[in-house]
Amino acid sequence: MTASKSATRSVDTNSDDISRITPLALRTSIRRGEHTGTTTGFSSGYLQGNLAILPADYADEFLQFCSKNPKSCPLIGMSEPGSPHIPELGIDLDIRTDLAGYRVFRGSAEYTSVTDVSDVWRDDLVTFVLGCSFSFEAAITRGGVRLRHMDANRNVPMYVTNIATTPAGRFHGPLVVSMRSFAPGDAIRAILYSDRYRLAHGAPVHIGDPLQIGIADIMKPDFGDEPVINEGDIPVFWACGVTPQMAIRNVLPDFAITHEPGLMLVTDVLAEAAEFSLQTKPEVYQS
Amino acid sequence: MTASKSATRSVDTNSDDISRITPLALRTSIRRGEHTGTTTGFSSGYLQGNLAILPADYADEFLQFCSKNPKSCPLIGMSEPGSPHIPELGIDLDIRTDLAGYRVFRGSAEYTSVTDVSDVWRDDLVTFVLGCSFSFEAAITRGGVRLRHMDANRNVPMYVTNIATTPAGRFHGPLVVSMRSFAPGDAIRAILYSDRYRLAHGAPVHIGDPLQIGIADIMKPDFGDEPVINEGDIPVFWACGVTPQMAIRNVLPDFAITHEPGLMLVTDVLAEAAEFSLQTKPEVYQS
Repeated sequence: MTASKSATRSVDTNSDDISRITPLALRTSIRRGEHTGTTTGFSSGYLQGNLAILPADYADEFLQFCSKNPKSCPLIGMSEPGSPHIPELGIDLDIRTDLAGYRVFRGSAEYTSVTDVSDVWRDDLVTFVLGCSFSFEAAITRGGVRLRHMDANRNVPMYVTNIATTPAGRFHGPLVVSMRSFAPGDAIRAILYSDRYRLAHGAPVHIGDPLQIGIADIMKPDFGDEPVINEGDIPVFWACGVTPQMAIRNVLPDFAITHEPGLMLVTDVLAEAAEFSLQTKPEVYQS
Repeated sequence: MTASKSATRSVDTNSDDISRITPLALRTSIRRGEHTGTTTGFSSGYLQGNLAILPADYADEFLQFCSKNPKSCPLIGMSEPGSPHIPELGIDLDIRTDLAGYRVFRGSAEYTSVTDVSDVWRDDLVTFVLGCSFSFEAAITRGGVRLRHMDANRNVPMYVTNIATTPAGRFHGPLVVSMRSFAPGDAIRAILYSDRYRLAHGAPVHIGDPLQIGIADIMKPDFGDEPVINEGDIPVFWACGVTPQMAIRNVLPDFAITHEPGLMLVTDVLAEAAEFSLQTKPEVYQS
């Protein structure tokens, strides 16, 4: 297997059906190189995750980092060393091929973009999958509250704050936040809806004045697109999955793999079931 | 029985025990004229209520008004016409004697302050008891978030807004809000904690710019005391029990009774049980 897939056909993102494609069908399509783009909007209701793959030497410390910073790093799955499988997130799942894009780091901030990491796989790699904002954003829109960046077809704006994460071993760095602005009543609703999705960063960490968390110019995000802020809006800030990526960049392990932003791992775990399960472990809903 | 009780002795409000006095003991003390002041801080964990007593001719319309405006008028109990009892709020409860202060209205905005309404009672009076902010404030402080008006030993500031309630029959009027200001992170927590207490106004209705809801000068409340707002605070606004009182004042029924602010009806209903009961009706915990 090579590090690139032939992009013969993407799943039609204009179709109404993208939300209804099963995670297994989408992963299979990605594995075959048929679907190459974002996973936003696909397989509605299923948990999607950020990816961090590290050598075993870093795994314990990174696990501690996630556990100490659960709002920015909500852990939803973790592999055994060397195993490309995480059965609790999907029985057939192969982490080496089932994402549409990866970034491979080799001891520096520079990276190589690839669509398959089978040929660079190592026996000591541990995979971490961390929750992303999709399920709380879905809850907000289900509640009838519009998300301005979605309406404008932009990426959510993200900012490095002056709030430090709790360090663990070699991992440390600032909290990164995403910002969504709302009319005040909608801001209150967005806070309430997102709080229920702890695996998707939960309730926001800040509201109002950006300067209080070290954001000098809200119109100039560090990542993502320029925000859309309407007259009378109040900005609301959530912990963001870029936080662990910055912590990894501060360590510069000899080897690391992350996902390309927006090209997430789509799991077989229903977001509602994972958040509100009576079980100690979320159940996998095999398609 | 006369309209005044002899104020021989108040329950000692400096004692640590005021939070632990049972509702029955407190109501008995009020009935005997021994406790004459505020009920704030007494009988921790039990629902306290705002009082509105109206002639039966107005009762259906007022019930509709409460039902259409549940955030400002959360109904926790209602009597049969002419009955001074509301068994679901306390088996021995006598609404004519069990509050420390009443306001009696006779077709105008003027009122008489009395400590007993036995001698003005009528066979057509219907009593409404509406939830108040105490249980959400208790939840906020249990969560470690300070309430600035409490720290300053002041009444919470209240404001008439430019938001109209939903009218019902003859009842109409503006939404009145109470304001509490917090550091932004605490504001988010206060929103989450208060949301769980729907019988105590639930989540706030506004956050941030006071002018957006018609409050020209936040330092000049329409009721209560001047607010304490710290540097970097964000103001948060909750629906307030003064709203139904203003709606009643707009109607000017030939006869009406309300409570004196702060001198509430203390019920035998545990706030947690009422909010989170698996029953269709809250249970009365008889002391």
